[in-house]
Amino acid sequence: MSLTIESLVHELSKLPGIGRKSAERLTYFFLKREQTENVILGEQISELKNKILTCKICGNFSETEVCPICLDEIRNHQLICIVEQAKDIALFERLHVHKGVYHVLSGLLSPLTGVGPNELNVDSLVERIKKDKVTEIILAINETTEGEMTSLYLKKILEKFDLKITKLLAGIPVGSDLEYIDFMTLTKSFEGRRSF
Amino acid sequence: MSLTIESLVHELSKLPGIGRKSAERLTYFFLKREQTENVILGEQISELKNKILTCKICGNFSETEVCPICLDEIRNHQLICIVEQAKDIALFERLHVHKGVYHVLSGLLSPLTGVGPNELNVDSLVERIKKDKVTEIILAINETTEGEMTSLYLKKILEKFDLKITKLLAGIPVGSDLEYIDFMTLTKSFEGRRSF
Repeated sequence: MSLTIESLVHELSKLPGIGRKSAERLTYFFLKREQTENVILGEQISELKNKILTCKICGNFSETEVCPICLDEIRNHQLICIVEQAKDIALFERLHVHKGVYHVLSGLLSPLTGVGPNELNVDSLVERIKKDKVTEIILAINETTEGEMTSLYLKKILEKFDLKITKLLAGIPVGSDLEYIDFMTLTKSFEGRRSF
Repeated sequence: MSLTIESLVHELSKLPGIGRKSAERLTYFFLKREQTENVILGEQISELKNKILTCKICGNFSETEVCPICLDEIRNHQLICIVEQAKDIALFERLHVHKGVYHVLSGLLSPLTGVGPNELNVDSLVERIKKDKVTEIILAINETTEGEMTSLYLKKILEKFDLKITKLLAGIPVGSDLEYIDFMTLTKSFEGRRSF
């Protein structure tokens, strides 16, 4: 196997869910198809992180300083849905159930891996709550140990404010990841969110 | 979801074995990891087909006009293993069972999809047989309908020459693809190749 091929197989094997055999199959697929197709994909991968910023209000992925959701005046800015990671926003947006805005924590409390309260975007959340007179906070966080710990920590901080704290309706299997839940379950759990 | 992200997810979904969910997972993985890693991968994908040529003797993938296998004087150039596609060579090379060289047909006869004898690299094979006084041809072709048809066609052409024609030992499940067979079965079927 030539060095060029071997080295692409090696790079592809680093990707999640792609083993050596899949990496080889992809490489041969690239060798077969039109060069222009490969150039489009290659440039998009190289350029991705140059084009995608973090929204300075909510932490969402964005091509502008402030993301389209935070800029949208029709949305309810007094209703904030808190998610662990920016990618979770795309999930809820596809359901069309949330009329408010989001806030990305950028992680969950995890004493084992050394993620403490200072590593999460909580200060900026508190600022938003004060500034926008937020009336409801939805905790849309995985029901794992870290998720529960983080929810309790946030509850303690948010209780000082005059707002409703809700979390998604149980229905999300305990210990599972939001990403793997079907849309119907996720929609129901969103609509049936309960006080926390 | 931003246009940049959506468009990369779309490009990734075109790849074999990668559905929409995997494409999203890959995109978020790219967003998380170091930019330099993405640039390395992106450039390798874009540049792949500029760097990889087809060996003008055997049809193997190569970074030089003639591939390292055809250039290797220690190998037995009177023993040619015939494969359907260039990628099959890597498979057999990993087994270390073949001491000869290769010849890539670049397809199999298939009346249904309009692949006739002229589409296969047979003329160049006949030239090599004459020039290198080849003594044995190993047919390492999938045992599918097209593969069998192609083997019989090649046999008819090669019978005119004074050489042994062998094919891989049955053990390769009928109708299956070489790529999915375990190394042990493939090694045994190679070592036990029989006259055809």
